[in-house]
Amino acid sequence: MQSTFLSKIRQQNPLIHNITNIVVANYSANGLLALGASPIMADSVEEMADMQQISHALVINIGTLSAHSIKAMLAAGKEANKLGRPVILDPVGVGASAYRKQVVKQLLNEIQFSLIRGNAGELACIAGVDWQAKGVDAGCGNIDLSPVAQQLAQQYRTIIGISGSSDIISNGKQTALVHNGTAMFPKITGSGCLLSAVCGAFLAVAPDTDYFVATIEAFTCYAIAGELTACSLKPTEYGKFNLGLLDQLGNISPQQITQYGRVEYV
Amino acid sequence: MQSTFLSKIRQQNPLIHNITNIVVANYSANGLLALGASPIMADSVEEMADMQQISHALVINIGTLSAHSIKAMLAAGKEANKLGRPVILDPVGVGASAYRKQVVKQLLNEIQFSLIRGNAGELACIAGVDWQAKGVDAGCGNIDLSPVAQQLAQQYRTIIGISGSSDIISNGKQTALVHNGTAMFPKITGSGCLLSAVCGAFLAVAPDTDYFVATIEAFTCYAIAGELTACSLKPTEYGKFNLGLLDQLGNISPQQITQYGRVEYV
Amino acid sequence: MQSTFLSKIRQQNPLIHNITNIVVANYSANGLLALGASPIMADSVEEMADMQQISHALVINIGTLSAHSIKAMLAAGKEANKLGRPVILDPVGVGASAYRKQVVKQLLNEIQFSLIRGNAGELACIAGVDWQAKGVDAGCGNIDLSPVAQQLAQQYRTIIGISGSSDIISNGKQTALVHNGTAMFPKITGSGCLLSAVCGAFLAVAPDTDYFVATIEAFTCYAIAGELTACSLKPTEYGKFNLGLLDQLGNISPQQITQYGRVEYV
Repeated sequence: MQSTFLSKIRQQNPLIHNITNIVVANYSANGLLALGASPIMADSVEEMADMQQISHALVINIGTLSAHSIKAMLAAGKEANKLGRPVILDPVGVGASAYRKQVVKQLLNEIQFSLIRGNAGELACIAGVDWQAKGVDAGCGNIDLSPVAQQLAQQYRTIIGISGSSDIISNGKQTALVHNGTAMFPKITGSGCLLSAVCGAFLAVAPDTDYFVATIEAFTCYAIAGELTACSLKPTEYGKFNLGLLDQLGNISPQQITQYGRVEYV
Repeated sequence: MQSTFLSKIRQQNPLIHNITNIVVANYSANGLLALGASPIMADSVEEMADMQQISHALVINIGTLSAHSIKAMLAAGKEANKLGRPVILDPVGVGASAYRKQVVKQLLNEIQFSLIRGNAGELACIAGVDWQAKGVDAGCGNIDLSPVAQQLAQQYRTIIGISGSSDIISNGKQTALVHNGTAMFPKITGSGCLLSAVCGAFLAVAPDTDYFVATIEAFTCYAIAGELTACSLKPTEYGKFNLGLLDQLGNISPQQITQYGRVEYV
Repeated sequence: MQSTFLSKIRQQNPLIHNITNIVVANYSANGLLALGASPIMADSVEEMADMQQISHALVINIGTLSAHSIKAMLAAGKEANKLGRPVILDPVGVGASAYRKQVVKQLLNEIQFSLIRGNAGELACIAGVDWQAKGVDAGCGNIDLSPVAQQLAQQYRTIIGISGSSDIISNGKQTALVHNGTAMFPKITGSGCLLSAVCGAFLAVAPDTDYFVATIEAFTCYAIAGELTACSLKPTEYGKFNLGLLDQLGNISPQQITQYGRVEYV
């Protein structure tokens, strides 16, 4: 694949507003900085409108929900919609509780998302298809999720990105698979959350007509960074992977995306 | 000692629900993943019952308390009790404020804990014995804490685990000392909190009649992982220790626990 | 420059109370531990008075504000003032929203700070001078900030510390520049927040008549630790810098501060 947007991130350093959880806030911020974007984390409703004025994308992550943060998510999302900013939803562990399901339903009703990025368990839950999710982990199931992604993309007039051993990205018309990646990703916390934030950075520098290809590039870039990190490590060096991924996000080049990317349109 | 439960963690990947603080949430989650368990962090009262349904253990950590999280702790603990799940309390810095003391008292009154794990200052505070704690650090004192551990275990019908240069674990009848460990543990934040989470993983795969031996194995496993990490580092390489501990938790084998464990029954 | 206070931190291990944000809580705690201080993080109003009794300095960081934490900040700051403890303000991203501006105004009205430490964008915002801040990042501008620092120090009867390629520290009468540092600092999240916490540790062991020189030593010590970390890294190894900085904070000696410090009084 051709890399178009990574160099734009590094030129423009877009500001990405994250409403996120206490587990991954640090790692997401560091990943965005390493890639070339600027993170801002804020989750008080009082400053959500102002944050959208200065930010180039909004990433909403429901990892550790509270009544406090839900209000902020709704206010920020609506304001970002008004301003035409890309808005990304990461429905972390949506299947783990009725509360999360209800909040995601409300977010989907009141906010127009540019991209919903999650793992198989999370997107299967939103689609209402049978899947054995496990807390915030992907879990397992026997369904081909490509048509599910396509149907969800149509239903919510958005892009769907499902992380997995091969990632699935659909805009409802076209569906792409990204075959890059490493089995070490699910062994560090927040690797999916950081991908959602990275997608925010890619969409922030893309015209909205290019959100689909920008999402594919984001997934590919991130998966290759993971591959390059993992290839020099023992399979249980999760600590080194955690940190090395930041180094690779800082180092990865458009040429490497073009060279190593394995994207298949289905 | 014989390792029984580490391999079960890696086979069963138990889901550990942590109600924890903003300082250690990331590190605890990464430590659990490295070990072979799955973490889920959530602290809104609205989803506490659901979280117990899907989790195999609950770890309550009072590191950054709020009215919001206290409600969640009480609801989660009672539900986990109903379901017969192991519940671990980490009374972080309980001696640092009257507020923490009062909350811990309420938690102890309303929840039956399987294990209370803390440092000397924290357990001495709960026992009401004389000790110079220092914030969330262990502090110092001149008392042999073994009988204190035993008395507390009887009083609260639980297991007591006190981290220190030698760890003390008591179920009220038997008391064990774990002589493994490294002086680098107290030099990284959340090393005690992660041990509590690790205990959650061990208790999650043990029958309740084995919680005492599972706790001893958890402490021993963790202490050895620390030893193995520290032995290749300079004494002030705290950053490398922080990260290397995750690598070791991923790598440590039942054989190493058997080989290196130094457990003494007193 | 002569190092006076680093060795005192390591002898006295002062307890630093941080009211801080979800992004940097872990990193700040680990940085303080590495340096030789003890961190405690707590942000519930119910325990703020108790925390000041046991702490040697208070660091207030507005990175992820909430109504909950603002109450705690005000209560903690007033109590620390009563007890004569040093109080540090880190006005993270103050220019990013009207909410932050208003909260900082209230904090400055109701609390006497010993030090306000921020980046150029943050201090320019408090001073009301023209500057292009960018979220929580420094942004850029064409003004010499030394006189701004001096004027702010006089206005708020405090010390002002502005981080940048050269740091500016003023007590309203004297102004010092610290020429140490590395361009990698702004590429990891919370590097400024950790410096504020480090300043807390230095002020905790200094008499109040020495807060100005203690602040200069804190900035110099931290900047040199960054330099020493960066000098062995490739310019995009942000992950390694993140972690290596902790190692250096554990290792840096008073002799290195004296040897490498480049402090200029203007």
